[in-house]
Amino acid sequence: VSTTLTHSETSHDPRTGQPLGDRPDSPPEEVAEALRAAAAAAPDVAAAAPGVRRDWLYAVADAVDARADELVALAEAETALGHPRLTGEVARMAGQLRFYADVAAEGSWLGATLDPATATAPALARVNVPLGPVAVFGASNFPFGFGVLGNDTGSALAAGCPVVVKAHPAHPLLSDLLGTIAGEALTGAGAPAGTFALVHGFEAGTQLVLADEVAAVGFTGSQRAGLHLWRLANGRERVVPVFAEMGTVNPAVVTPDGAADLTSLAAGFVGSFTLGSGQFCTKPGLLLAPRGSGAAEAVAEALAPVGPMLTRTIAASVDSCVDALVAAGASIVARVPGDGAGWSAAATVLRADLADLRPGSPLLDEVFGPVALVVEYDDVATLVDALDALQGALAGSVFGAGPDDADLPAVVDALSHKVGRVAIGDWPTGVAWTWGQQHGGPWPATTDPSATSVGAAALDRFVRPVTWQSAPDTVLPPSLQAGNPWRLPRRVGGVLLAGDAS
Amino acid sequence: VSTTLTHSETSHDPRTGQPLGDRPDSPPEEVAEALRAAAAAAPDVAAAAPGVRRDWLYAVADAVDARADELVALAEAETALGHPRLTGEVARMAGQLRFYADVAAEGSWLGATLDPATATAPALARVNVPLGPVAVFGASNFPFGFGVLGNDTGSALAAGCPVVVKAHPAHPLLSDLLGTIAGEALTGAGAPAGTFALVHGFEAGTQLVLADEVAAVGFTGSQRAGLHLWRLANGRERVVPVFAEMGTVNPAVVTPDGAADLTSLAAGFVGSFTLGSGQFCTKPGLLLAPRGSGAAEAVAEALAPVGPMLTRTIAASVDSCVDALVAAGASIVARVPGDGAGWSAAATVLRADLADLRPGSPLLDEVFGPVALVVEYDDVATLVDALDALQGALAGSVFGAGPDDADLPAVVDALSHKVGRVAIGDWPTGVAWTWGQQHGGPWPATTDPSATSVGAAALDRFVRPVTWQSAPDTVLPPSLQAGNPWRLPRRVGGVLLAGDAS
Repeated sequence: VSTTLTHSETSHDPRTGQPLGDRPDSPPEEVAEALRAAAAAAPDVAAAAPGVRRDWLYAVADAVDARADELVALAEAETALGHPRLTGEVARMAGQLRFYADVAAEGSWLGATLDPATATAPALARVNVPLGPVAVFGASNFPFGFGVLGNDTGSALAAGCPVVVKAHPAHPLLSDLLGTIAGEALTGAGAPAGTFALVHGFEAGTQLVLADEVAAVGFTGSQRAGLHLWRLANGRERVVPVFAEMGTVNPAVVTPDGAADLTSLAAGFVGSFTLGSGQFCTKPGLLLAPRGSGAAEAVAEALAPVGPMLTRTIAASVDSCVDALVAAGASIVARVPGDGAGWSAAATVLRADLADLRPGSPLLDEVFGPVALVVEYDDVATLVDALDALQGALAGSVFGAGPDDADLPAVVDALSHKVGRVAIGDWPTGVAWTWGQQHGGPWPATTDPSATSVGAAALDRFVRPVTWQSAPDTVLPPSLQAGNPWRLPRRVGGVLLAGDAS
Repeated sequence: VSTTLTHSETSHDPRTGQPLGDRPDSPPEEVAEALRAAAAAAPDVAAAAPGVRRDWLYAVADAVDARADELVALAEAETALGHPRLTGEVARMAGQLRFYADVAAEGSWLGATLDPATATAPALARVNVPLGPVAVFGASNFPFGFGVLGNDTGSALAAGCPVVVKAHPAHPLLSDLLGTIAGEALTGAGAPAGTFALVHGFEAGTQLVLADEVAAVGFTGSQRAGLHLWRLANGRERVVPVFAEMGTVNPAVVTPDGAADLTSLAAGFVGSFTLGSGQFCTKPGLLLAPRGSGAAEAVAEALAPVGPMLTRTIAASVDSCVDALVAAGASIVARVPGDGAGWSAAATVLRADLADLRPGSPLLDEVFGPVALVVEYDDVATLVDALDALQGALAGSVFGAGPDDADLPAVVDALSHKVGRVAIGDWPTGVAWTWGQQHGGPWPATTDPSATSVGAAALDRFVRPVTWQSAPDTVLPPSLQAGNPWRLPRRVGGVLLAGDAS
């Protein structure tokens, strides 16, 4: 935080560290205007039928698809994540937007419930209503999937909330292009002015979280930044929920009988923890393998150079985090320098003793980058105790000897208490956007263990229920009216009835 | 908080202020043992089929019914709320316990979702799992409905979480009896030891909120106490959710055309705001009526003495709160001293100007007791602005001239943005425990605007979703196994399928 009045974000090419251009921070009056417009739009966005909001989101997705090449080129310049990955991620972003649109139109998330009056109870009609404007803080590491038009923005708009995004400084130029595309598409599809806005700069982010108009905050990023926003919001006069999805150590476990093909496992592990240069919130940072399996050596053998990091800060923190792991008792097994002249970081595998994985140890903290720890265990009982001592995490993996591996149930169960998602035989990286996804987890993986930022339930974060008692049809929202004009699935008299909106 | 090692709560007869007996506070080691037992029981309570937990809760409800007379007599001695009210409330408590049991068995709250694998996404299976031991802080004003075996305890047990209750000092002897009945009934029904425990004392409450074993907190009571617990939990190393349902000013509004039969309205208002001597979290503390309707005078006319308050502290605070309202610009229209020689408080109606209902004014703060404010408005636009300036509340009421009252939709809509429940033509007191109930509301009515402490969705507070990816049936919980052994409603491939567990 500086005290001068004009700030700007400088965009850089991570491959060279050279500047690509400047993007001035949004001045406070511009942020205030975006917030006023969002608050003014909120009733109309909320009142639009979910099928209407579906059309808005499809229009954004179509516009994104139409300009995919331009988006990928700009993202590649600012992030160096590579054309194949970025091309896939643009398609993912468009797919997510359409998915949240379809979930909105299906209507189960509204939870419409009608209890007719009885001899002892009045008629009650309950439905989820949008909270109001949502402030979204996009992530550095997924400029499309979790960026300006990522999961938080898609699910908040689908749920009927205007969105004001705070752009991530790792890709300000791409953020602007995404914001322009979204604004034009929404206007073209008939969404109210104020449905969407984009702002830049640290102070703008603080202003959003403290603004009266903001009803909820969605965040994807580091624990430090996420908890900062959570504390900020908890200090408001009217506290609002902050849904922060934060980086974690995502443990991967090999059962005693699962270590047969260790060469293949090690290659998979390296592929997963160095994906995107290790800049995944679901990166497996810890591999627990049977004593004597030679896992650390096999992983070291598979290690290869990774591309540049997203920012100078991230690149520098990789080294200092490795130092912290060594200071906490880990030893380096292998280290491979990054490729290129820019913000490179060394891919590193370390080894540590199971006994050192104690609550509070830096060995249990996330390293954001291509770094992982290998730890050997003696028996399943010790392994289960060790899992119990880990921090909450977004995801974890278990590799066994197939469905009949006798140790699999106990290990999967132990891991399920610490994570939002347990993958069996799959690496934790890769987060499908379907009905059954859970991208969240126990504290400190998120600030709300019941929330997900990916999947159909992502909409649930941005609504609250309201019940109308003894209400005539004339005052009820369409979702609760006798004729069910939105053709929603509804629970009537305790019985769930199918809808036919889709 | 004292520094001596032995404390106790003294039970009093509110009608006389005389002591009825002492109940020693639970020493720290006793609280720690209850927590250890709850944590040890948690896996078994969670693993029990919802239908099995239904039987446990029915056993508690049956035991409560069997000892209703004894419970009412003890509650009457400690609370002076009257036999008719307390008899009804015991039946309500038993009914709630059976309702949450039935909701658990129906199974929709589990949100079981199965996405088969596709060409681009792995198989995902998602279900809500119990959080673990829940600390419940019962309310003073509903010794049964929101007490030791009230909504929080019933819904937490139904959701598969062990419960440790911190008894309210306003009725320690009744709390013990309820705890004994529940413990015996649960043991008799086969629930694991540690499923339920009761502790006493302020320090015991602090110990619960800070305990590693506790995964969530349920609270019903004042804003001061609720926010204290919320801050305490937010300071933990592993932060846990606090679901605090707190007292609010619950506005009641009469539309311009709704003021025809003001005598009847005034009688209803007095009946509602003096119910239980005004000690309801849904008490309507503010009546907004058309200018010149004579509402304040009609309410004054209907005012009658109320019975004693629950505690000496509450009785004293009623007077000081009335002083604060007067200091903030209100004037007393009528005041009727309480009946009896004990902890009586005067029923009081005050008048204030609409212009003084500004954010931050004490006129917008709850008075817990038989006190209400009457404010007149000039037109509906002014009224809607005034509603917008109110604090968030649990409930509100609108009285119009029937379903065709032209002002009704705008007034109901404005109120719906500030409350969890809008009653049309009903007073806000009285909270049915059905599928469609919402007993919650925007900050500061609760610490979580999406939560309810009454109704089927009360269970949702005490679970979090976990997704299993690419998992064989051998590691999935019964809720997600291919054969659907619990016969749950489940969403499969995006389509909701009915269950048949009930």
